[in-house]
Amino acid sequence: MRLVLDAMGSDAHPEPEVHAVVEAARRWPEDTFYLVGQESRLRPLLEALQPPDNVVLVHAPEVFAMTDKPGETVRRKPNTSMAVGMRMVKEGRADAFVTAGNTGGALANALFILGRIRGVRRPGLMGAFPTRGARTLVMDIGANAECKPEYLLQFAIMASIYAEQVLGRARPRVGLLSNGEEAGKGNDLVKATYPLLETSGLNFIGNVEPKEVFAGVADVVVTDGFTGNVFLKTSEAVVGLLVDVLKDALMASARTKVGALLAKPAFGRLKTMLDPSEAGAAPLLGINGLVFVGHGRSDARALVAALRTAREAVQVRLLEQLAAGIAARLRSPNPTQG
Amino acid sequence: MRLVLDAMGSDAHPEPEVHAVVEAARRWPEDTFYLVGQESRLRPLLEALQPPDNVVLVHAPEVFAMTDKPGETVRRKPNTSMAVGMRMVKEGRADAFVTAGNTGGALANALFILGRIRGVRRPGLMGAFPTRGARTLVMDIGANAECKPEYLLQFAIMASIYAEQVLGRARPRVGLLSNGEEAGKGNDLVKATYPLLETSGLNFIGNVEPKEVFAGVADVVVTDGFTGNVFLKTSEAVVGLLVDVLKDALMASARTKVGALLAKPAFGRLKTMLDPSEAGAAPLLGINGLVFVGHGRSDARALVAALRTAREAVQVRLLEQLAAGIAARLRSPNPTQG
Repeated sequence: MRLVLDAMGSDAHPEPEVHAVVEAARRWPEDTFYLVGQESRLRPLLEALQPPDNVVLVHAPEVFAMTDKPGETVRRKPNTSMAVGMRMVKEGRADAFVTAGNTGGALANALFILGRIRGVRRPGLMGAFPTRGARTLVMDIGANAECKPEYLLQFAIMASIYAEQVLGRARPRVGLLSNGEEAGKGNDLVKATYPLLETSGLNFIGNVEPKEVFAGVADVVVTDGFTGNVFLKTSEAVVGLLVDVLKDALMASARTKVGALLAKPAFGRLKTMLDPSEAGAAPLLGINGLVFVGHGRSDARALVAALRTAREAVQVRLLEQLAAGIAARLRSPNPTQG
Repeated sequence: MRLVLDAMGSDAHPEPEVHAVVEAARRWPEDTFYLVGQESRLRPLLEALQPPDNVVLVHAPEVFAMTDKPGETVRRKPNTSMAVGMRMVKEGRADAFVTAGNTGGALANALFILGRIRGVRRPGLMGAFPTRGARTLVMDIGANAECKPEYLLQFAIMASIYAEQVLGRARPRVGLLSNGEEAGKGNDLVKATYPLLETSGLNFIGNVEPKEVFAGVADVVVTDGFTGNVFLKTSEAVVGLLVDVLKDALMASARTKVGALLAKPAFGRLKTMLDPSEAGAAPLLGINGLVFVGHGRSDARALVAALRTAREAVQVRLLEQLAAGIAARLRSPNPTQG
């Protein structure tokens, strides 16, 4: 298969991208890896690593910066690495696109260049959150700040297909993120979405609170992109706060320093569980093409994991599965049943 | 002063409440502490502790259970410990009411018995979140799942008065919880609230993300009660997950066990920072009476901290300050200007 990596995405670009693409190309020699970005910057970095033949450099003169406003920049900068890379997917010259860049920019470019899967109201960003032993998919984690109940129903359909096809979960359990477990809890959006999910034919388990997301009671949790984004960023912030405070406290005395040294393997396990590079990248589900967005802080290892996530989606023909799933819903006389 | 403690509130009631009220009465001998609940259950527990004279038992035959539906139960059970305790505040026989019971029940009873401060659209629940070195007030953390921009403006006014009067912060910095820092980010509610806060005369610092809440860049952060509740519960869930995983990992080998033993003081510091009993209780601001809601999992120590929080509010005459602050806003020709 053919995968495109945006060379100008991560906060520390392009070094992590260059290292990642070379590592991925060695790991999966049967695949082709396109590295898209400013050739004059990338060429010397890449050649220093003596890349295998299945790494191909593709020039894109512009960069979609983290500070660029998505809507206007898409038209003002038609030749960013994002745009050039996504056009390769659009034109059938590549199977999936991976970036660690501006999420809004990725969404805007994806909508502009690739468009939506037929019948999809709004594409959404799906994240994978660590639980004890597995991961829970949460959608939308930031693409749509304002949502309608029908969008959340479609998020549930698409994320369930992902859970089934990519993660191999049979009849994925679907939860609705709320401020209480009982039916009837929630804001207006949650209350209006509940009956749609109840009659959807999906394996709906009702409202779930954040605690349940991390307990792994559901395979898929749906929410609007504003709440999902607050959920994501609160998780990250609390982890950051705890790790900082613990580090400081462990360095406070000779005794605790020795303790920290001995306890190091335990901290390593914690780190592995929370490491964003374990989670890979978040797919933009609903776009008519496979697009994955990694964390801006991604290093080379995280980017290789993101490419692995993209490979898995291509392998199971995720795009075709999503399109078929949505089409089946639209054909059904009552689109909320079935 | 005279403080009322709901004896039937916490998950483990009434033992933690009985111990807390005796400890508080010894710590603050000049105050009177009313313990409200089922007398036959409370009397023997209380007498076993040889309580000082400033503990007074008040009988209330009914219990507002965690599973009771707030709206209907208020009318169906007019003599719960919550209702009896709040009526004491209403009738001027006590200065503040503290419970670790059903939050919805506390709100419904408070609205029914005490009513709102004149001019307040919706009372809200204000929580205090740990930051490195201080605490940030967040409102609303669960009273109003659906909010209008004017409610959030009033939350900002009331929480600012609390930050000034109770925490002694001069010109409290007010942030608006959002999915991005830039003005223009957010859902419809955030976008509509932004200009109200900008022209409010409050010390508005703009949108803040969860990371900034924990970094302590604002004294007060406002949000709707749905998002605030997800924020609160996500924080708690992530802390719980990390602590569990770390404990398991530390117990995995003899080496890490020794490390954990040596590092114990460091974990103690972390625990203190995250301990809900350090935070006291969350006030229901906007109610025409001082009502504080503690965590259902509160132990005796947490309940004493909750009583301390209530005492501080009574000492600074918080209710009068809130009423005056809201009244000043209503007198101003343009209530959104400060």
